[in-house]
Amino acid sequence: MPGHFADRLMAAIREKDSRVCVGIDPVPDLLPRIMLPPNGRWTEQAISEAFDEFCSRIIRSVADHAAVVKLNSAFFEALSPLGVGLLDSLISLSADLGLVTILDAKRSDIGSTAAAYARAVFGRYPAQQGAVPDAVTVNPYLGGDGVLPFITEAEDLGRGAFILVRTSNPSAAELQDLKAGTWPIYRHVAELVKRWGAERCGESGWSSVGAVVGATWPRQLAELREAMPNTPFLVPGYGAQGGAAQDVLPAFDADGLGAIVNSSRGIIYAYDREGYADRFGPDEYDLAAAAAAEEMRLAINEALVGR
Amino acid sequence: MPGHFADRLMAAIREKDSRVCVGIDPVPDLLPRIMLPPNGRWTEQAISEAFDEFCSRIIRSVADHAAVVKLNSAFFEALSPLGVGLLDSLISLSADLGLVTILDAKRSDIGSTAAAYARAVFGRYPAQQGAVPDAVTVNPYLGGDGVLPFITEAEDLGRGAFILVRTSNPSAAELQDLKAGTWPIYRHVAELVKRWGAERCGESGWSSVGAVVGATWPRQLAELREAMPNTPFLVPGYGAQGGAAQDVLPAFDADGLGAIVNSSRGIIYAYDREGYADRFGPDEYDLAAAAAAEEMRLAINEALVGR
Repeated sequence: MPGHFADRLMAAIREKDSRVCVGIDPVPDLLPRIMLPPNGRWTEQAISEAFDEFCSRIIRSVADHAAVVKLNSAFFEALSPLGVGLLDSLISLSADLGLVTILDAKRSDIGSTAAAYARAVFGRYPAQQGAVPDAVTVNPYLGGDGVLPFITEAEDLGRGAFILVRTSNPSAAELQDLKAGTWPIYRHVAELVKRWGAERCGESGWSSVGAVVGATWPRQLAELREAMPNTPFLVPGYGAQGGAAQDVLPAFDADGLGAIVNSSRGIIYAYDREGYADRFGPDEYDLAAAAAAEEMRLAINEALVGR
Repeated sequence: MPGHFADRLMAAIREKDSRVCVGIDPVPDLLPRIMLPPNGRWTEQAISEAFDEFCSRIIRSVADHAAVVKLNSAFFEALSPLGVGLLDSLISLSADLGLVTILDAKRSDIGSTAAAYARAVFGRYPAQQGAVPDAVTVNPYLGGDGVLPFITEAEDLGRGAFILVRTSNPSAAELQDLKAGTWPIYRHVAELVKRWGAERCGESGWSSVGAVVGATWPRQLAELREAMPNTPFLVPGYGAQGGAAQDVLPAFDADGLGAIVNSSRGIIYAYDREGYADRFGPDEYDLAAAAAAEEMRLAINEALVGR
């Protein structure tokens, strides 16, 4: 069994001097056009092969620049059943390359059903072959009944869970910012996350129960870091969604630890972005991704030094 | 393309004179012991075959007594990749038997990711063969960005979505009952659900955007029925979780329409329950399920007549 999830996460951040998490969100229409089958039509098999090649090359290429990869379950489920085997093999590849892996599944259910989801993520029936992800994302709307089965299953395996607290999307405020008493809802959720994770800290002082807090809301990021001093943060919304290096600084402690910042489209589709498209050929999408990940790594590290 | 989801749902309720939804939650340890492989060990293949036989027989047997079956995605994901094909074939079987099908997946994500989940549920890449579920359950924590992709994708296909409003589990209150202004959170969510579904009503007057409201909270059920007069309710928590026929009455309109009540363990594992175990042999679990579904159908219908 591996060591405590948060200890491994912080060790990976230190070792690579990187707070970058690369989000693997494969979509057929965004792949380099040279990957389109000769007849111009995507079959399931063709998509599966293209996803495999695209994601594998990206993961190999960013492994020196990122501490974590976050695989987005939706895009593999959309390719079921082929997507299941593909997801497994990409998790194994990432683990072999020393990357911490997060399955971004945002699951939610209660009791035995939540336990079945946790089993689907961390082991399956009767026991999954090969690597399983190091952590999973979980939605808190159902309360402790829906979250604790993930937390306990994860902990038993040296794994972690990141609970949605304040998400990065525009409509997040519709529910999460409603004010109940003196606190908005997301602050109440933060209190639950802190409580669920309190007895689950590793030697690093960080808990195996993390929080998802969007980069698009720097004020909330500071407020929540203060409220949850031992909770690792997964910070989405950097890059394509609008967050910049300065915006994510409040997520980190004085040692520059405690958080990873995710960019998905901004890195994996960098080949098609201004500033990259002219430097990399259409078959060098993996090199473009590595350059974008390295640029993000440096931007965050420099902002941390300068704060 | 099929007709409007809610029209089809209400037609199925009328035709079968049943408000029963049977929850298909297969778990190896709860299957009749006679299904255990001869060597006493569950392999993935053995579980898959046992789930197929168990669920297929249950679905065939309850088809005359229930209007809807709700397949719980977690239990099939725990058996991935075999579970994917199994889920597809059970949805096809249910559709062939005239049952409305709900995939209980409680998904949540935003924008293109939510669209990918919707595609995973309703079609996949490039287009799923065979039947797809008639509706899916969705978690509202991310706000409209996370819910609308499911709603629009569903509507385009004559399908529906049930949004979690007030769930049936004990810890539901931790978030859902926090009071923001004069309303608890679940009531704010109800308002969003009403708004999302307002322009999406069929000829029956009911919307393709439904709500999940637990049977374990009759007062909230009445409050929410009044707040959402055109919203179909999926009411979990009947039976094993403690809800009774009297408790679910507030979910229905004056014609006894507008809601389906789910029981999972109480029906599919009836073979092992008091009052059934002595009437049905271990290989007659399907007949026990049919008897339990029929008893539930009559209990709700009689309570409706008596109110």
